[in-house]
Amino acid sequence: MIGLKKMLNPRVAAVVGVSTTNPFNPGNVIFRKLAFENGLPTYPINPKGGTVEGIAVHKSLTAAPNDIDLVVISVPAKYVPGILTECGEKNIKSVIVVSGGFSEVGEAGANLQSEIVDIANKYGITMVGPNCIGVFVPDVLDTFFLPSERVARPRRGNVAIISQSGGWLIERLEEFAGRDVGIAAAISIGNAAQTRVTDFVEYFGNDNRVDVILAYIEGFAPGEGRDFVEACEKIVPKKPIVVLKGGESEAGHRATQSHTSSLAGDHAITNAAFNQYGVIHALDEDEVMAYAKVFSFKPKPMKGSRVGTLTVSGGHGVIASDEAAQYGLLMPLFDKEQQASMRDMMTPEYQGIASFRNPCDLTGSASDIDYEKVLDQMLGFDTIDAALLLLLPYAPGISLQIGARVANVAKRHQKTVIAYVPDLEKYEVIIRGFELNGISVGDTIEEAVQMLNGIRMRSKYLQHAGVI
Amino acid sequence: MIGLKKMLNPRVAAVVGVSTTNPFNPGNVIFRKLAFENGLPTYPINPKGGTVEGIAVHKSLTAAPNDIDLVVISVPAKYVPGILTECGEKNIKSVIVVSGGFSEVGEAGANLQSEIVDIANKYGITMVGPNCIGVFVPDVLDTFFLPSERVARPRRGNVAIISQSGGWLIERLEEFAGRDVGIAAAISIGNAAQTRVTDFVEYFGNDNRVDVILAYIEGFAPGEGRDFVEACEKIVPKKPIVVLKGGESEAGHRATQSHTSSLAGDHAITNAAFNQYGVIHALDEDEVMAYAKVFSFKPKPMKGSRVGTLTVSGGHGVIASDEAAQYGLLMPLFDKEQQASMRDMMTPEYQGIASFRNPCDLTGSASDIDYEKVLDQMLGFDTIDAALLLLLPYAPGISLQIGARVANVAKRHQKTVIAYVPDLEKYEVIIRGFELNGISVGDTIEEAVQMLNGIRMRSKYLQHAGVI
Repeated sequence: MIGLKKMLNPRVAAVVGVSTTNPFNPGNVIFRKLAFENGLPTYPINPKGGTVEGIAVHKSLTAAPNDIDLVVISVPAKYVPGILTECGEKNIKSVIVVSGGFSEVGEAGANLQSEIVDIANKYGITMVGPNCIGVFVPDVLDTFFLPSERVARPRRGNVAIISQSGGWLIERLEEFAGRDVGIAAAISIGNAAQTRVTDFVEYFGNDNRVDVILAYIEGFAPGEGRDFVEACEKIVPKKPIVVLKGGESEAGHRATQSHTSSLAGDHAITNAAFNQYGVIHALDEDEVMAYAKVFSFKPKPMKGSRVGTLTVSGGHGVIASDEAAQYGLLMPLFDKEQQASMRDMMTPEYQGIASFRNPCDLTGSASDIDYEKVLDQMLGFDTIDAALLLLLPYAPGISLQIGARVANVAKRHQKTVIAYVPDLEKYEVIIRGFELNGISVGDTIEEAVQMLNGIRMRSKYLQHAGVI
Repeated sequence: MIGLKKMLNPRVAAVVGVSTTNPFNPGNVIFRKLAFENGLPTYPINPKGGTVEGIAVHKSLTAAPNDIDLVVISVPAKYVPGILTECGEKNIKSVIVVSGGFSEVGEAGANLQSEIVDIANKYGITMVGPNCIGVFVPDVLDTFFLPSERVARPRRGNVAIISQSGGWLIERLEEFAGRDVGIAAAISIGNAAQTRVTDFVEYFGNDNRVDVILAYIEGFAPGEGRDFVEACEKIVPKKPIVVLKGGESEAGHRATQSHTSSLAGDHAITNAAFNQYGVIHALDEDEVMAYAKVFSFKPKPMKGSRVGTLTVSGGHGVIASDEAAQYGLLMPLFDKEQQASMRDMMTPEYQGIASFRNPCDLTGSASDIDYEKVLDQMLGFDTIDAALLLLLPYAPGISLQIGARVANVAKRHQKTVIAYVPDLEKYEVIIRGFELNGISVGDTIEEAVQMLNGIRMRSKYLQHAGVI
């Protein structure tokens, strides 16, 4: 764990494989990011020496100073063993190997990969990669060798992401930035030759700044799957672990062979194992976002599957009902007394056109205060475990204040509340009103339903395990 | 059809239910839109007379001039029969009833609804509604009584949308505007008391400016389902019809009762009927967008289900393979000869790290020209029926020109090509490069796969029906 700790918070770094002639070389991109964007003292290394960005290049790691915490290696595969040995002899414990050309390109590469694992193990080096893009920790460290202007970066937050695919990880960063979900760290593990997803799950499991662990996994090495779920089982009571598994179809499995040469598993087996150990199994990228986002809010648990729904558009109520049914969530019919008590909360002139069976359709004539009062009433019913709010800000009576107003109503109750608001810049005030007051907002009806589903899955597991 | 034709392209309109004191009254919003945003000569009607926006209010339809093509009625339900009778006696053939308070609120409302249908039929009036938001035709007509600043409007195009839910329709307008898909018309049919979805499908089926018909349906009146699919069967050889069916779950079905009081159908029955008659059955809002968008490009057919995939990120290839498998699309392994011929197309220094099994992963080192040449080679193989391009513009060798460059390669071949590009403003140049050159772009991998699925479903039906 010392190696990982230094990797995620180094005081001094070195980049091996910095060109003095080609500023677009991946090693140079990484060097510029570390040295200038992160302000991390970083030594550039190249056997030819010279200078890069006005900084003297050391001809080898051996020739560089002795205060290095982290080495990033970006050279052709065949040179990696020698450089790793230099790291070991210099007592450097953290190394990221971004170079490709290992197990993903066939037998010769696989042999080279075994060799570097042996070297890392011999010297007690924590090695991430090879064939990865490395590590991003907001405000601390960024080894992703992609032009900065091409990729948005999310703010610092409480979600840790671990990915076997660099491309997938980069897209999540874009998406998290766009949805304003903060991250604690993003790790590209590539071929995961030595340090595996399980190691990072354990590390983030013990990191108090992390509230959600998210992983994209293409496959496990023999025996690794069991280690993984058993490690998860210990952490899940403290924080949710969300996993997307790539390569579950036959064609997808074949594709993993060219990519990270993982042993992909069967969907049904994966699903059963994940369920048994409390791992939230996301089935696609939409679910990944829904679960990661909602858990980042540390939502109140759902004691059962019953959802009360408020809408201002009948069609949205119908679609939400269909989506909820697909996820096994219930929308129980409110009884006559419950209906009457909500109707009484409405502005008198609209009481006649509103419907309270569940979904409750306040109609496009409703205004903020109707929405607040009906929600307050509904959250008091013991026949529901959560509320789903469908907000169509097109309705003229709905103001941009409604997010904050309604969120403050929700605070008075012990039930989970999730909202749907179309993800448009003009409704940003509503979305922030909800989110700054602790309510997660889905950008589609389906996402809002998925958020409820994630909470319910986790609550059910924790109930079963006797944790709540 | 005369009634519908006048409704969608009126020369003069009247709005009944315009307040002289409340400018936010729905009738006033509609009047201002028609008169000023659409520049359509429009008479405001209110028994009290006076002026609105400086224009003289007529005390009744009867008292207004005789050149009215279209009347929009926005008054309490009980006054609607009398106004409809005035329309009939004035020989007006097109009426939109936005007022609610009919079959959606119980038996008394249902009786009132029967009454207005009888009046419309007696006078040969084409009536849309009640309980609807009316009609939007870009640059011509907009009766949607929502503040203009709250809803984006798409450009004029070739997709016609018919919806039983006004809220759902409004969201599609936002979404179509955001994705730059143009529409020919958007119709909110509300309770569909007289003019039903089938009437509009037939109308747009014969309108040459419409290339795609999209409908959201909560349910059919008794016997209407059969009429609908039989009408579709005649139109489908000319243009695709895409339908999202709401209320397929039990809770969703119940919700339709409070909304449009439709008879919802069972999912399996709907699906079988749609398949039999060649209707594309969208299962959620994402599929609606994917199918509507891809068909708006009038894509080349797919003779089979075999897809060749090009990517610059291995993880994206894995995920695309899994998604394709879910939709029954195949990614056949390329044989050694095919692989070698594509490898030969690559820049020599990257040939060793690229993979060509399918998905073909050109790696993050690939540049535009690699992508173009490999695609050109791949589209010549008779073992695939379409190509899927996964574009991660994060790769430094991929320029913003790539969309137009690659689209021009695709033009040389007779196969469908679909691209995935993350939907970010900074990649707008790439997306437009593709789309202006006839290639539809998905904003998620899943959407791109859904687009291929839509084309394949339609091609399969047309092959089976002997049309292609």
